[in-house]
Amino acid sequence: MKKLNIAIIGLGNIGSYLFNYLNKNKKILSKKNNCVPNVLFVSAKNKKRKRKIKIKKKLWLKNYLDATKDKNVDLIIELIGGSEGAAKKLVFNALKNKKHVVTANKALIAKYGDKLAEIAEKNKVNLEFEAAVCGGVPIIRSIKEGLIANKINKIFGIFNGTSNYILSSMDKQSKEFDEVLNDAKNLGYAESNPSADLNGDDVAAKLKILTSLCFNSYLNNNIHVEGIKNIDKIDINNANKLGYKIKLLGYSEQINNKIYQRVHPALIKKSSYVASIDGVLNAVIVDGKPVGKNIIQGEGAGPAATTSALVSDISSILRGNIKFPFSISNKERKRLKFENISKRFFSAYLRFEVLDKSGVLSNITNVFSNNNVSIKRLVQNPNKNKGISSIIIITHNSKDSSLNKIVKIIGKKIYVKKKPKLIRIDDN
Amino acid sequence: MKKLNIAIIGLGNIGSYLFNYLNKNKKILSKKNNCVPNVLFVSAKNKKRKRKIKIKKKLWLKNYLDATKDKNVDLIIELIGGSEGAAKKLVFNALKNKKHVVTANKALIAKYGDKLAEIAEKNKVNLEFEAAVCGGVPIIRSIKEGLIANKINKIFGIFNGTSNYILSSMDKQSKEFDEVLNDAKNLGYAESNPSADLNGDDVAAKLKILTSLCFNSYLNNNIHVEGIKNIDKIDINNANKLGYKIKLLGYSEQINNKIYQRVHPALIKKSSYVASIDGVLNAVIVDGKPVGKNIIQGEGAGPAATTSALVSDISSILRGNIKFPFSISNKERKRLKFENISKRFFSAYLRFEVLDKSGVLSNITNVFSNNNVSIKRLVQNPNKNKGISSIIIITHNSKDSSLNKIVKIIGKKIYVKKKPKLIRIDDN
Repeated sequence: MKKLNIAIIGLGNIGSYLFNYLNKNKKILSKKNNCVPNVLFVSAKNKKRKRKIKIKKKLWLKNYLDATKDKNVDLIIELIGGSEGAAKKLVFNALKNKKHVVTANKALIAKYGDKLAEIAEKNKVNLEFEAAVCGGVPIIRSIKEGLIANKINKIFGIFNGTSNYILSSMDKQSKEFDEVLNDAKNLGYAESNPSADLNGDDVAAKLKILTSLCFNSYLNNNIHVEGIKNIDKIDINNANKLGYKIKLLGYSEQINNKIYQRVHPALIKKSSYVASIDGVLNAVIVDGKPVGKNIIQGEGAGPAATTSALVSDISSILRGNIKFPFSISNKERKRLKFENISKRFFSAYLRFEVLDKSGVLSNITNVFSNNNVSIKRLVQNPNKNKGISSIIIITHNSKDSSLNKIVKIIGKKIYVKKKPKLIRIDDN
Repeated sequence: MKKLNIAIIGLGNIGSYLFNYLNKNKKILSKKNNCVPNVLFVSAKNKKRKRKIKIKKKLWLKNYLDATKDKNVDLIIELIGGSEGAAKKLVFNALKNKKHVVTANKALIAKYGDKLAEIAEKNKVNLEFEAAVCGGVPIIRSIKEGLIANKINKIFGIFNGTSNYILSSMDKQSKEFDEVLNDAKNLGYAESNPSADLNGDDVAAKLKILTSLCFNSYLNNNIHVEGIKNIDKIDINNANKLGYKIKLLGYSEQINNKIYQRVHPALIKKSSYVASIDGVLNAVIVDGKPVGKNIIQGEGAGPAATTSALVSDISSILRGNIKFPFSISNKERKRLKFENISKRFFSAYLRFEVLDKSGVLSNITNVFSNNNVSIKRLVQNPNKNKGISSIIIITHNSKDSSLNKIVKIIGKKIYVKKKPKLIRIDDN
């Protein structure tokens, strides 16, 4: 039987899990793919770190870049992470030297994917990154193969387990953000530095990659990104009363030949599918023709789920299934027009904490009407702090720039006691 | 660019839709797969039937079997249907003559799949049948490729849109089975002869195929099959009061190295994912290691969704991605032990319509205790018909054969006025 020689570079939790998996499942993978996955080399920054796995001495490379030069190596699995430095050097050199590459590195692909795909295509090697987007959810393979027939008009969903865990825990346990974040860190659902998970950057990187795959376009940095740090318990409670959940969602959609990419918290109807996804799960909804709506859901992170994705990529290479990294030849990818969301229309939830005195309400509603935003629903609640009121407004469909302008104008009024909140509503 | 010559045999709704799709999307499919899908021939039983598509005269074959003999044909798409007759002849001959085959024919694959896979493997051609299982849901590709890393221990879900539509409409509109079936026929959600959809046979064929793929086993006819014809509105109402929905589910699971295949209506918790799937949708849940639970959901039938699946198979062949039809070489497939569900344990819902007189309840409960089935919950309701009571019993986990024995024994009692109901409960 044919053999494919593999170098695993990076042996953290994921690399170690994968190494172990490949050892234990070499036989069945060989049978299924008609080719033996043979781990020839490994490399890690910290060779002496305690790992649960036994690695033979002869497997260790002196220098991780040697993998890109050794003529026996067919496939390099990059598990270093980060869009620059060692990971970047490794993947560029590997592809230049005609090695297949499998990576879980979303930051690298979102930033340098176009250039890397060009090199891979020129050298007729695979560049696979299923594990970079939504862990165990086989979404990239589905877009590129299972749903290949479809003209996709929208992809959206929950792409970050950490922030989804935090939002659903705030809801279920009626706790504030900071409290839940601490719990999440203790339970291992949030990293010690979770900023990329919480500020939307992690979702943004995944969404850029998915956008390219769905619309056959180049990667594009025109993307609106908001995280969940400003969501308060009171907003989640208010949403509940209005029949909504708050979720951090990523959206990419084609409207009148323009692409809109956006990542932000959204109020979404309780009865919708996405609202029911709690905890660390990921869920992706693809809307296309002829298939209609397709949903894929599963574990979005962790060594086990990520290994499932890495092995699907490795198997594809074992079978010799050479494909364009982004579905289509680099030359055929399109320079689509990406539009900022400021001109797009949303209905929205706004919350103002204001002094409880006469004239305030009429002043606020005036600002709305001056900016052509019509109010669908308004609720005024007394706040726990004496003399302060919460005003909650649900708007009709309005221009995003107008909604933001209103927040800015009212935010400067002296009767406003806290930065106003604006959360878009997804009524689909 | 390379070219792949295709013959489409069968031009009903699906065949016509596919023909049209391939005409319109030839260019983009060529680009994505680096090979041109060229429809060289078509054939249909009724050539003169009115179709919305224009077919050039030169495309028509004199005899459909000519496609298997013409040396220019690379791929035959079988859309005739049925496990015997023309479809069987066509597919066997095609594979024997080294033509790739794509089919949407679940009955054929469930019955002759093992033999067909053997021929395909011997002749190094593809036999692909994504469209045979759950229409637009790319479940076969996911099991064979996206989730290839996993040892699957259970697959289950909603595999029939017609019966799911009927059950969810009975629930939402509070109507009886026959009434809803009529609506479904008028709306095109049920065929004029829907018996295979309603008696569980359609689900059984799909489940047999999925079982083989998940457990690397040969197809096996040891399967328990029940349909939805005996579900009354009152059962759905009772289920609702107890916190359940009733769904027609297919399950295949490996327990202590034995495989259990079963198709039956089940009470499933309202809060569960599957309970939320209404209408004609299909949903498949795959539980495996290392990935955990993966869910795929989408349109399960109709020309559009089926074409999405057919084109994914065609594309795979365009790319030259030769694979074993059932994931693994025919020689490597396993003769696993398949067990009848009679020894498996379920909790269950039972309903007895009985004469409203003293002694009946104690007689019934005696039968339960004599057969070692313990009762978790019992509700007695007066029936609309005077002198008749409904007795609803929820049991603890009990042997399936004991549950059935109880139904048989009590069903013969003179105080019983209707055939008793037994519906298993899925508490997972």
